[in-house]
Amino acid sequence: MRDVYHEELDSLADKLVEMTRLVRSAMSRAVTALLDSDLRLAEEVITADERINKIDADIEETVFDLMARQQPVAGDLRTLVTTLRMSSDLERMGDLAAHIAKTARRRHPESAVPPELQSTVLEMGQVAERMIAKAGSVIASRDVEMGLELDADDDAMDRLHRRLFDLLLSPKWKHGVEPAVDITLAGRYFERFADHAVHVAENVVYLVTGQRPQEIIDAG
Amino acid sequence: MRDVYHEELDSLADKLVEMTRLVRSAMSRAVTALLDSDLRLAEEVITADERINKIDADIEETVFDLMARQQPVAGDLRTLVTTLRMSSDLERMGDLAAHIAKTARRRHPESAVPPELQSTVLEMGQVAERMIAKAGSVIASRDVEMGLELDADDDAMDRLHRRLFDLLLSPKWKHGVEPAVDITLAGRYFERFADHAVHVAENVVYLVTGQRPQEIIDAG
Repeated sequence: MRDVYHEELDSLADKLVEMTRLVRSAMSRAVTALLDSDLRLAEEVITADERINKIDADIEETVFDLMARQQPVAGDLRTLVTTLRMSSDLERMGDLAAHIAKTARRRHPESAVPPELQSTVLEMGQVAERMIAKAGSVIASRDVEMGLELDADDDAMDRLHRRLFDLLLSPKWKHGVEPAVDITLAGRYFERFADHAVHVAENVVYLVTGQRPQEIIDAG
Repeated sequence: MRDVYHEELDSLADKLVEMTRLVRSAMSRAVTALLDSDLRLAEEVITADERINKIDADIEETVFDLMARQQPVAGDLRTLVTTLRMSSDLERMGDLAAHIAKTARRRHPESAVPPELQSTVLEMGQVAERMIAKAGSVIASRDVEMGLELDADDDAMDRLHRRLFDLLLSPKWKHGVEPAVDITLAGRYFERFADHAVHVAENVVYLVTGQRPQEIIDAG
């Protein structure tokens, strides 16, 4: 049987996985709210962000409590510090999903996404959801292979982001400045969301292997 | 005389202060590069960001090394974890200054900032510089009063950010979509820079007082 201390370490991992589930749900609903101009859904995402922030605060409290009471050894200390970092990344990803929902709310009842951009934004949402789902699996299973996949997903997000700008800056753009500002910000939120997902996976890969993903990829 | 361990803790604070100096210089030059469309200056800022990233990596290595060798007690552990967080914030602020420099570079030899926005962008740069300077002083002196001032500076940045959007979305805007996209992103970089400066100060205030700035302000 594991002792209370190690049970607490395990429960921290469970809380991180729970955060990834909430962030995934937030992102999925935020993108729907954005594309369908669904005000109620947008409000739900904005309100639900508090729950993600609450888990982040709980994790921080537990980590500092464990540090104070248990004098953890070096390996466990690294795990605890990494847990704090992943929790911060996930909390931030929740904020970014809420920012996307706020864009939808600000523009309601109009849609913030002109028709010719809808498919690109939908794809960005799908990549974002895939990335947070994988980040959750990587935390739960410590699966290094899957952790390394996030880099390719991030490249896919970057390509979609560039396509968004190409459409925005094309001579065919007829929607003026205001939708361009919304789309520029939404694009930035998706891009940062992907960066944080990569960062979460990197932290797990580093905990398991002692190497950064790029070192593993470079080593072939 | 202090022992080697506490000398190492002190030297971490020195490294953080050095980062604030480099970030301040980066932000100052990035804003000049943006307003004057100065390509060489922009390139300098982008290159110099590596030095900031290097110090962040050094701090991380030292912290984990101290944790592994010294089995620090709870109070020192909190200081070490907070050091990692401040280092991450400062590293990110360096990235944001570099992003502003990249905006200048992308638009060179044109200016990314239309004439009627120059004074607002200049003010945003001044607030950003003031905030990182204060963050450096707060780290060096553990001055809680000054740490609490950062919230008011952040409000000033938010007001400037709203003014930027008002100008961008006014019927008088004659510059089309491309400069609007640049300004939208630059505005976001300034805003995030200010958020990270607040976060750095919050961490110091929390270390010194055990309270978050908002709790202190609420308590009058």
